[in-house]
Formats: sequence, structure tokens, C-alpha cells
Amino acid sequence: MSLLIKNALINGKKQDLYVYQNRIQHISPNISKQADDVIDASQKALLPAFYNTHTHAAMVALRGLGEDKELNEWLTQDIWPREAKMTPELIYQASRLAILEMIKSGTVFFSDMYFYMPETIKAVDEMGVRAAISVVGMDLFDPRQTQEKKKQMRSFFETPVPTDRIIKTVACHGLYTVSEELFLFAINLMKEQKTFLHIHAAETKQETEDCSQRYGISIVEQLNKWHALGPKTILAHAVHLSEKEREIIADTQTVIAHCPISNLKLNSGQMPLDDYLERGITVTLGTDGAASNNSLSMLGEMKIAALSAKNQANNIKAGKVSDIFRMATRSGATAFGLDAGDIREGALADFILVDLTNPLLMPPYDLTANLVYSADSSCITDVCCNGKMIMKERTVNQEKEIKKAFTEALEKSIQ
Amino acid sequence: MSLLIKNALINGKKQDLYVYQNRIQHISPNISKQADDVIDASQKALLPAFYNTHTHAAMVALRGLGEDKELNEWLTQDIWPREAKMTPELIYQASRLAILEMIKSGTVFFSDMYFYMPETIKAVDEMGVRAAISVVGMDLFDPRQTQEKKKQMRSFFETPVPTDRIIKTVACHGLYTVSEELFLFAINLMKEQKTFLHIHAAETKQETEDCSQRYGISIVEQLNKWHALGPKTILAHAVHLSEKEREIIADTQTVIAHCPISNLKLNSGQMPLDDYLERGITVTLGTDGAASNNSLSMLGEMKIAALSAKNQANNIKAGKVSDIFRMATRSGATAFGLDAGDIREGALADFILVDLTNPLLMPPYDLTANLVYSADSSCITDVCCNGKMIMKERTVNQEKEIKKAFTEALEKSIQ
Repeated sequence: MSLLIKNALINGKKQDLYVYQNRIQHISPNISKQADDVIDASQKALLPAFYNTHTHAAMVALRGLGEDKELNEWLTQDIWPREAKMTPELIYQASRLAILEMIKSGTVFFSDMYFYMPETIKAVDEMGVRAAISVVGMDLFDPRQTQEKKKQMRSFFETPVPTDRIIKTVACHGLYTVSEELFLFAINLMKEQKTFLHIHAAETKQETEDCSQRYGISIVEQLNKWHALGPKTILAHAVHLSEKEREIIADTQTVIAHCPISNLKLNSGQMPLDDYLERGITVTLGTDGAASNNSLSMLGEMKIAALSAKNQANNIKAGKVSDIFRMATRSGATAFGLDAGDIREGALADFILVDLTNPLLMPPYDLTANLVYSADSSCITDVCCNGKMIMKERTVNQEKEIKKAFTEALEKSIQ
Repeated sequence: MSLLIKNALINGKKQDLYVYQNRIQHISPNISKQADDVIDASQKALLPAFYNTHTHAAMVALRGLGEDKELNEWLTQDIWPREAKMTPELIYQASRLAILEMIKSGTVFFSDMYFYMPETIKAVDEMGVRAAISVVGMDLFDPRQTQEKKKQMRSFFETPVPTDRIIKTVACHGLYTVSEELFLFAINLMKEQKTFLHIHAAETKQETEDCSQRYGISIVEQLNKWHALGPKTILAHAVHLSEKEREIIADTQTVIAHCPISNLKLNSGQMPLDDYLERGITVTLGTDGAASNNSLSMLGEMKIAALSAKNQANNIKAGKVSDIFRMATRSGATAFGLDAGDIREGALADFILVDLTNPLLMPPYDLTANLVYSADSSCITDVCCNGKMIMKERTVNQEKEIKKAFTEALEKSIQ
């Protein structure tokens, strides 16, 4: 399979781009190769797609439930009772709806953390995106659950997945919900499988206090003591870190998945992005789930990441456009070992086309700033993932059917 | 002229809405009246449109210039030199582009503060929206400019405007750029003309310190001493107010135009929305100019207003969805004396239709939350202002021509 994009603005100049199978093979003006699919992009720019490094995709089914409540009320009155009614069918349909929203806002990859992962895997496979999927380690310190989870987590790695767009990862929910035994098992499994470890860490102050009480040291110190840290470990949130914890993160090259909207919406605090970047920490960007955002758009996430960084650091130069854009693209891709996130020969063929005649991208002084600060999904016309066009002129396969099936599954589940 | 909207979700139930001339005449299920235009809205909700109470519309021409610089560098190196090259033709074309962006994101009114207002007036008239327009009082304490401005401000009220969708207002740039003489003249003119007074106030800490040095008292106290405050005075920003100033604002029923994105982007600080609303102050919402936002969408503004309110108050219950939505609709309309901003019989026929089958508005648990937190412009399909459809199925008259003419005018101005 081959694909030829003609006359797009690529890395600052008008060029063509040729894709063979799933890689960008050639970028230059006037490529005259034959291709199975040829797209005229004369009025468009070709840019990296977005990599959402922390979400709970199927939670779109809970979007808008119990707004403006205290965290505990919200969880106990709205989220948990509704989650208890989530069927595998609803997870499948909600995953499809979430992926539809992601594609329409230019996202080609998400690192997920939720239940019934076979349903999400099916949705990812069918819709052509990439995802990092796991059986989430969480035992609430109940020894029976610990054993059960261990079995499930191990057997996940023995079960084949239908596409190599799926990265099997190990996830542990967090230090306040996972026993030491299960954590040590997960860390061992992650190393044995040479894969990634995805953990909620230091999202709230409460969580850091709980850890001190339980282990006598901070979250990051405890993870380090277990040898859980390194460039293949992704800590979601990391809002509340001490000086010492920040040093450990930098030293071990541990990755952070920054979720600024969720942190503001749940009033968890503002992550000190500026400080982390200055230390050379790899920060990526995630939307978290739609229940606490309530969008899955990386465009909105970039804008609020930039604004929050300036406010948190009390510095207008913090949250620079180029840093924020890299977090949402290249840093997110490489954090999960994907040779993608920028537009160059040899890289995986993941990209978006944006309509340069959309008023939101005018004038063309600073395309990156326009994407970070003024674009919305209406600017993104086409999306390519792994060499295949998964949106063309804003049309995604089966959109109508996906929305109808989601509504039906939702109604059935809450009857 | 008459208009009939069929089968829309209106105020929580499926209804029809009949518009005669520029007012909503009747709302009920199954209206069988004849109308000049009939729109089927079976899959849509009919909602109030948005009222942007503080912007500088033509600054879209400066979008993306000099990102992430210190305020002073940005102004002196990027904004002011480029503004000096702004021609009346560019102001006209940029105003049209800005209004196009506003319509596409559901905004039907903006309170503007910029140069060459005849050009903006022409754009407003042609494109069918509403605006509050003024000759901006600003003399930089130069007595010659004071006299010149007085003449221009008075003669503005003697010049007819082409449509009653335009409200002539009095504007003074701010206490740090306007002499006492010009301020007193403006306040007098506003009262004589029974119109509104639009002022930048307490946007930055620097501005409040400047006022203390100049007048020995705070900005709001000084405005109060001049009898400038009241329900027809709109203070843009109002980030840094003392306890005493807040009391005066509440007592005088002075209106605030809150611009949370601009305040974060320019690192001016976060306005204490929660506190102001608790005091019963009328807070409306503005995008400020595209140079410091960089969007003119009230959807994005609502989301960040909510998030910023929670962060500023350190309270998850601050920035409630219903408060934020009212600020962007009803409060904005009534602040400028418009009998609009909600959907009821007798009100001005300003409204939007949103596509309930857009994934961003699914599931339908809380439509207001979906608008505040997850919607983007792609959800808004139709816009009605003053009884006339100015966008239908996302199509605005002359969109292509507007974008082309803007690009040409911009290129000409920077040659």
C-alpha cells in the first residue's frame, strides 16, 4: 500500500510526501511516483498527529455526570454507581465513540487505563489508531484480588492482539490502591516483557500523604526503591512532587503524562511544568478521561497546558508554544517507543492535514501557535495513522453507526 | 420576515419556535404557522447565542505574533509596530474575519475597543451581528490629544450608524492612559447619551500601583469618585481588586467583563470569579483580542473560566457550569441592555442550533456541561441574530471572499 500527499506545507515549505506501507519513505517537492491513493493538499499543512499519553477512553460514557460536586460525592454518587453498570458492550461502543472524537481532533494514539480491555482492543483495531493497553493492576490491598490480578496481568501477555498498533503495557492504578506485592509483581512483569509501566502518581496532595503514612517515604522514592522508575515508566499527573522526587525523576529519565485540564477541573493543583522541563524531564500530554475534562481533544489540552504553565510559574515565558507542541507530538510518541511524532523520512506514517484557509489558522504568522492557541477540531481535515488514512475531509468510516450503537448500548446499560 | 424552527430541543423539551421580525413570538410543540423560512431541527438543540463583552476584533490580524515574549517586548517589538501599519482596509477585512470566526463559534454580539471604528461598523452591518462600538478615549496625558479625542468622541454620537444592531458606547482605554479631563468628559458624555461606559480596569498589578501613585487611591475608588460606576459601566478584566473595591463594584452594580484566557496568557493573574459572584456582582465573559488569546470562541472562554475559577478559589465547586453559561449568554446580553440571552417568548431572536449527534455533545446527560467543557465550533450548525439566520449548516455568506480579501489586505499592509 502506498500513499502520496501532494503540495502540502511540510516543515515550512511546499512539498510532497510519499508513504510506502506504514512509513514515510520520501519527502520532497514534485514526487512523481505512482501511489494507491493520491491526496491534493494544496491549501493544507501536513503536521505530526497527537499522542494522548493518559486517558480512560470508555469514560466518554460518563461525560457530564455530576458536575461541580466534591470529589468524593462525585465518585460515590455518580461515577462508581454508573461504572458498576458498564457492560462489555458499552465499553466497546464507548471506546469507539472516544476514538471517533480523538481521530476528529487529530489524535492517533492513546495510552488507556480502564476495564474490559478486550473491548477497547477491538475498537482500536477496527478504527485504525494506536493504543497502549493493559490489564490495570488494582487490588485495594485485598489478598484475594492480588492473586486474581496477577493471573489476569500475566495471561494478558499470553493472549495475542489483532494488530501491532497495540502496545501491551503493564499498569498499576496507584500506590493508594495497589498492594506492595502486586506492585512488585507488575514491575517484574514489565521488565520481563520489556514493556512500559503506567501509573497514577502524585495527582493529589492526599495521595502523597497516604504514601508517607503507608511507606514512610514519598511516592517517587518508594517507586525508586522498588526499581520501578526509568524511561519506560510513565507517571500520570505528577502534580505534587518534592525537590528530591523531581531529582529522582530527572535522574532516572522517568516520563510524566501531564493532564492539566483534569488537574484543574478536579482541583488537584497545577503541575510545575516549567520546572520539570528545565530539569530535562520528558513531559508528555494526556487528556485523562472525559468524565474529568470533558473533552478528549489534544488541541484544548495544549492550550490549557500553556496557560496553566504560565500561571503556575508566574512567568509569561513558561509553557512555550514549541515545548507544548512537542509534548503533544514527539515526546508522547517516543515515550511509548514509537518512531513517530515528527515528519521525516523513515518515520512511521502518522500525520494530520490542517486546512490553512480555516479562519482559526489565519493569519499564518505562527502555525504552531495557531494550533496550540486557536485551532479546534474543525481545522483538522485528514488523519493518517500507520500509513492509512483514517479520516478524509472530516469523514470517518461508520461515524453514524458508531454514534447510534453507542446510544443504544448506553440506554440498555442504564435501564 | 418570519422564521419557524421545528422540533428543536428548547428549554429541555422538543418544541417549535416562531420568530416574527426580530423577536421570538411563540414557543410550543406543533406550531403550524406559515413562515418565510422553515428549519427542521429534529436532531438539534436551540440555545442562547453568546455575547462577547470585551474584545478588539480586528486584532485577529495580529494573531500569533511574538508568542511567549515579555509583555513589554511583545508590545514594542511586535504589536505596536504592526498596529502602526494597520490600514482602514485591513481593519475592515480583519473585522470581517473576526466576525466570521465569532459566528462560527456561536457569538452574535461583541463589545469592541479599537481604531477605525467606521470600518468595523461596516463589517458588523454587513455580516448581521450586533456590536457595541465606540471611539476609544485615550490621550496618553497629552493635552492636544485630549482635545482631539473629545471632538471625535462627541462627533461619533452625531454620525448615524447603518443598523440598530450597533450600540454606540463611550470607551476610555484605562486610568494609566487617559487624563482626568478626558475621563470626566467621557463620563459626562456617557450620561448625556444614556449609553454604556467601557473601561480596561485593574488588569495588572502594575496598573493598580500606577493609579495609587497618580491619584492616591485605587482604580475603583477613583472611578467612583468621578461617578463613573453603575450598571451601565463595564470594567474589562478587574483582576486585582481590594476588598473595598469589590464592595464598591457590588454596591454600584457595576459590570465586569471577565477575560480569563487573556489574563492567563499575559500572566496578569486569575480573577477571583467565585468571590465576585458570591457578592452578587454581574460578571460577563469576553475573549479579549486574538493577539492575547488567540481565539475568539466563547466556548473555549467558558471552559477556561470554569477551570480558572476552581483553581483560583481552590474549590472544586467554584466556576459552576450554570454560572459560566449564564455569564456567556444572559449576563452579557443584559449588561448591554439587550433583551436577549435566554430563549423565551418576547425576547430578541438571537440563538444557536447545536448538533446533538456530534460526538462532543454525547451522551446527553448535561447539555450545559457539554457546551462549557467539551463542545467546539464543530457542534454549532446554525446561528440566528435579530431574527435572521446568519449561519446555516455551518455556511456563512461570502466566507471564501472574506478570507481572500483579508489575506490580500494583510499582505498589502505589511509590504
